[in-house]
Amino acid sequence: MSDMAGAEEAAADGSAARWGRRAWELLERVRARAPLVQCITNFVSMDLMANVLLAAGASPAMVHSLREIDDFTPRADSLCVNIGTLSDGWLPSMRAAAAAAARSSRPWILDPVAVSASEFRMEACLGLVALWPTVIRGNPSEIIALTSACRVHDSKGVDSFHESLDAVESAKSLAQRSGAIVAVSGATDFITDGQQVVAAQNGVAMMQKITATGCAVTALIAAFVAVEPSNPLEATSCALSIFGLAGELGMEMANGPASLRVHIIDTLHGLSEYTVASRVKISLVS
Amino acid sequence: MSDMAGAEEAAADGSAARWGRRAWELLERVRARAPLVQCITNFVSMDLMANVLLAAGASPAMVHSLREIDDFTPRADSLCVNIGTLSDGWLPSMRAAAAAAARSSRPWILDPVAVSASEFRMEACLGLVALWPTVIRGNPSEIIALTSACRVHDSKGVDSFHESLDAVESAKSLAQRSGAIVAVSGATDFITDGQQVVAAQNGVAMMQKITATGCAVTALIAAFVAVEPSNPLEATSCALSIFGLAGELGMEMANGPASLRVHIIDTLHGLSEYTVASRVKISLVS
Amino acid sequence: MSDMAGAEEAAADGSAARWGRRAWELLERVRARAPLVQCITNFVSMDLMANVLLAAGASPAMVHSLREIDDFTPRADSLCVNIGTLSDGWLPSMRAAAAAAARSSRPWILDPVAVSASEFRMEACLGLVALWPTVIRGNPSEIIALTSACRVHDSKGVDSFHESLDAVESAKSLAQRSGAIVAVSGATDFITDGQQVVAAQNGVAMMQKITATGCAVTALIAAFVAVEPSNPLEATSCALSIFGLAGELGMEMANGPASLRVHIIDTLHGLSEYTVASRVKISLVS
Repeated sequence: MSDMAGAEEAAADGSAARWGRRAWELLERVRARAPLVQCITNFVSMDLMANVLLAAGASPAMVHSLREIDDFTPRADSLCVNIGTLSDGWLPSMRAAAAAAARSSRPWILDPVAVSASEFRMEACLGLVALWPTVIRGNPSEIIALTSACRVHDSKGVDSFHESLDAVESAKSLAQRSGAIVAVSGATDFITDGQQVVAAQNGVAMMQKITATGCAVTALIAAFVAVEPSNPLEATSCALSIFGLAGELGMEMANGPASLRVHIIDTLHGLSEYTVASRVKISLVS
Repeated sequence: MSDMAGAEEAAADGSAARWGRRAWELLERVRARAPLVQCITNFVSMDLMANVLLAAGASPAMVHSLREIDDFTPRADSLCVNIGTLSDGWLPSMRAAAAAAARSSRPWILDPVAVSASEFRMEACLGLVALWPTVIRGNPSEIIALTSACRVHDSKGVDSFHESLDAVESAKSLAQRSGAIVAVSGATDFITDGQQVVAAQNGVAMMQKITATGCAVTALIAAFVAVEPSNPLEATSCALSIFGLAGELGMEMANGPASLRVHIIDTLHGLSEYTVASRVKISLVS
Repeated sequence: MSDMAGAEEAAADGSAARWGRRAWELLERVRARAPLVQCITNFVSMDLMANVLLAAGASPAMVHSLREIDDFTPRADSLCVNIGTLSDGWLPSMRAAAAAAARSSRPWILDPVAVSASEFRMEACLGLVALWPTVIRGNPSEIIALTSACRVHDSKGVDSFHESLDAVESAKSLAQRSGAIVAVSGATDFITDGQQVVAAQNGVAMMQKITATGCAVTALIAAFVAVEPSNPLEATSCALSIFGLAGELGMEMANGPASLRVHIIDTLHGLSEYTVASRVKISLVS
């Protein structure tokens, strides 16, 4: 091994350790502050999303009526908007809440689930992107589709079929255009502010066999960004890695997707400093 | 120990044994009669609520369309109304169902979730309280807010931050004004008809880390009151204690909130007479 | 034992083995093709339905907005319509999607949950039946009520109280009138095209103590019919038997309904050829 390679490796080790400490610091902050996270989300994910937020120490609130946005959204610490089961009735609330969050300088996170499933969904998403989300998280298909703002005709519903790496360039472009941090989930998650790209490598494949894990990690990002609004790139990276780590540890006990779901939540609730600090795999890619 | 203290202790023991037998009697009745419990509830809690009702032996029916109230509500044995994800579209059904239940002399139970989250929610709740609920169950914040009918500005969404004891005076006042039994959940649950106060002390703290446990126990109260409509104070106390007991026993096997949720339902389904009779902790406070 | 009895038994054995191979073949096909199953379903069942579809290898999509039907339904491989929490707002989407599926020659499956709960529900169902569903699956009460198109006044919500055998004649009649395969769930499931009747005998009683298992197996039928649209009778029989088998195997590890639910999904995900081929119990009744 050359000296230079050795130095790079040492730097990488140092960086990994720094990210591990950072992830723990933010998880501890979520546990201590119990940020109130308003979720306007799809019907499928509400249960998992609320339970993941509670397990992480946050305080979920599924409040979606247009009649409540003005009263409630400014009191929430962050907002998570997810279009998974979008309908005409809910879209005005999503828009109003996003606008209220922006006005109140609260971070808000967009999950453009299956954005290419219909023109209606795509138009709704483009309208939401214009309301200055702090973070946008999706799978590669969704990020690519949203970026090109055109339909991907062979889309398989909400599942991911593009490799996340392919979507990194789209993500950078979307981040530059929208001003949001953009996260692309996959075997490796990539997170970008349009310039830097961070890779988070925790997680196991079976998490994709559990419905709403993507929605749930978006909610977790909302909790992390709520306690670190000044650095959403790092908060997003840490949330993704922490959730993936819960999946890895849960997988050691799981017999299939349903027991994995149980173990992910249990594990997330009990994560220790040592585990987080030693097993979080985040690195700066570029 | 003085003689008097000994007599009091014996009386307390006798009372505890009586409550244990009473709780078992009502659980057995739920299992035997399988009361049909109509739930108009929030999207987050439907799954847990239905599964808790089934595990207890009741028959859940999530029927909320205004078009179905006249046909269906009079055939249900009780009604559970929960405003967790309230919207304009659902409120008329809640009102109509509550009125239909009252007309048919069926008990109906109100869960004023996060009542202080908005003016809309508070007004909706006040309107529902006027429709003669048999029981109102909430956490201390909710009961206090509903009683004072004014907003608690530092509310943390649906979670409880007041100690339940603080809410007992509010609960008594609300019971007197509304004619309902009022139950306040907490480390100790307090149940009052406006005069007497009963304490139910089963349960474990981790239940608060599972979304919708409060909603689920409200549904369980609806099942118990369905089989004992003439004594909703006792039925409510027993339902709260039984659910808390399932939590205690589930906790012995749980590794976190998600496995606790599984064990609560399994335990509730299998509860035996000996366990209920010996472990239910209910007492008359005043 | 007479020679004839021996020959019949051998034929029955041969038939059982054929059904076992057939069930495995279709499960493998679902895993290989990951059919996109659009679900317009009730709020209670969405989570279980999506997780069962994922565990079987299918790709669920809960897309219900009327604005998305034209774009999305023709791209789905099959459609599952479930009226469990029916409302005026959702019915037009159900109708439009059923019509779109029929136009696109995609199979679509109807679950007439609690059809006798109200006139509204019954009329909605009759309208849907007229849109040429490929399969209708219900419990005996629902199938009998739908067939007689009149209300069963002592109905206990969505639970089954008629024995499935009693409903077979109704099912045959409904199949003949509607042109659909009709499946009646019970201790034994019966599946008919109006002429032949197939019996599927896998399953355990405790599955009825888990909410939405009926809805989930209807979604599984949609996945199986998606990969074998030319023989919905066999696809439906195999899906019912496979789900029941997952229940039987899950029951060996379960302590109650909640752990059974976890084990059913885990088991479904991991089912092997040997297990399916040797334990599927399907036979031609008439």
